[in-house]
Amino acid sequence: MVVRVDLNISLDGFASTTDQTPENPFGEDWGRLVAAYTATRVFRERVLGETSGEGTTGVDDRYGTAYFEGIGAEIMGAGMFGLHTFPDDPDWRGWWGEEPPFRVPVFVLTHGADRAPIEFANGTVFHFIDTTPEEALALATEAAGEADVRVGGGVDTVRSFLAAGLVDRLHVGITPILLGGGQNLWADLRGLEDGYAVTSEVAESGVVHVTFTRR
Amino acid sequence: MVVRVDLNISLDGFASTTDQTPENPFGEDWGRLVAAYTATRVFRERVLGETSGEGTTGVDDRYGTAYFEGIGAEIMGAGMFGLHTFPDDPDWRGWWGEEPPFRVPVFVLTHGADRAPIEFANGTVFHFIDTTPEEALALATEAAGEADVRVGGGVDTVRSFLAAGLVDRLHVGITPILLGGGQNLWADLRGLEDGYAVTSEVAESGVVHVTFTRR
Repeated sequence: MVVRVDLNISLDGFASTTDQTPENPFGEDWGRLVAAYTATRVFRERVLGETSGEGTTGVDDRYGTAYFEGIGAEIMGAGMFGLHTFPDDPDWRGWWGEEPPFRVPVFVLTHGADRAPIEFANGTVFHFIDTTPEEALALATEAAGEADVRVGGGVDTVRSFLAAGLVDRLHVGITPILLGGGQNLWADLRGLEDGYAVTSEVAESGVVHVTFTRR
Repeated sequence: MVVRVDLNISLDGFASTTDQTPENPFGEDWGRLVAAYTATRVFRERVLGETSGEGTTGVDDRYGTAYFEGIGAEIMGAGMFGLHTFPDDPDWRGWWGEEPPFRVPVFVLTHGADRAPIEFANGTVFHFIDTTPEEALALATEAAGEADVRVGGGVDTVRSFLAAGLVDRLHVGITPILLGGGQNLWADLRGLEDGYAVTSEVAESGVVHVTFTRR
């Protein structure tokens, strides 16, 4: 079992954006940050539900395909699920409609929220828990069986798992743009590379894929 | 004529280090940041004056060789020259001994310092000037003839030239370590990529070379 993180970040390290509005909750910058990923065939099939077979099929698509393989459970923060954007909507079911791309148990870290699990027909079940990274990981590991656990986001959640030394493989797709603000993945993580092998690869799109793998 | 910048930075964007001491004015982290560059054959020949032909000869050496080619004048900040480390030594002649690797006129930006030029037998001449980036560039351009001008460092100096839109080609060698502190090259440079083509290449050493070239 491997604990995995995959994030898209800018060259200046930002994995979140600052130009969100109620009408555009992800912001324009988010689209620029993930443009190469959302152009891949695997994203269009797996997240958008397209069956056309269109989309890029190069290095970005290979990382995107690996992203979806072998995951048995996911952990995410309340912000990624949308609870910070829609705090007063008890019927909020996440950003992903009736076909969330996870298809596994998802543990949503909240502070004191008392929400019942939300089940979808495709195997996605959101569980809401108020606990530490270590205990969340124990729950997710049990739910995942022999498969891997992903810490999906957002940045604060990922950083808390990185700081606690709980991540076995960190993959970042670095888009060569400077956002100048947001949450910086790398802040206060001096020496993170200790104990990891780091490899890098440049995609046709210009995205630089950097992977930290625990030695 | 092209205005060029080359810097080694960490994955979290730091081009300067924080562990300097009077006995070790560059710090241990500096050695880790530039390890792949200082291992190249061209560095050992050009900066250390070795004639053994030893050193790495791959992608890092190719960038290192390009670094030294076609430069007709250089601009650097007072800190890079060493005036902040040795402010009270009127006889300070820089870090590089009697064979500074520049071999061209070097314009050192100071604030109010009134120092006479320092000439070396190999063509290096340090001129001390108190002026704006634009006027420094005009002086360096005239001194360079048809050749290129390098803005050598340190980070503050480079950032002032980047912010003023004066740099035609920015090359960073990104070492996959996290320093966690220092001067961040990317701070407050949102949108720098506008007007540049950005390309990336991974060296055998693991260093990721990213180049911004003005369109």
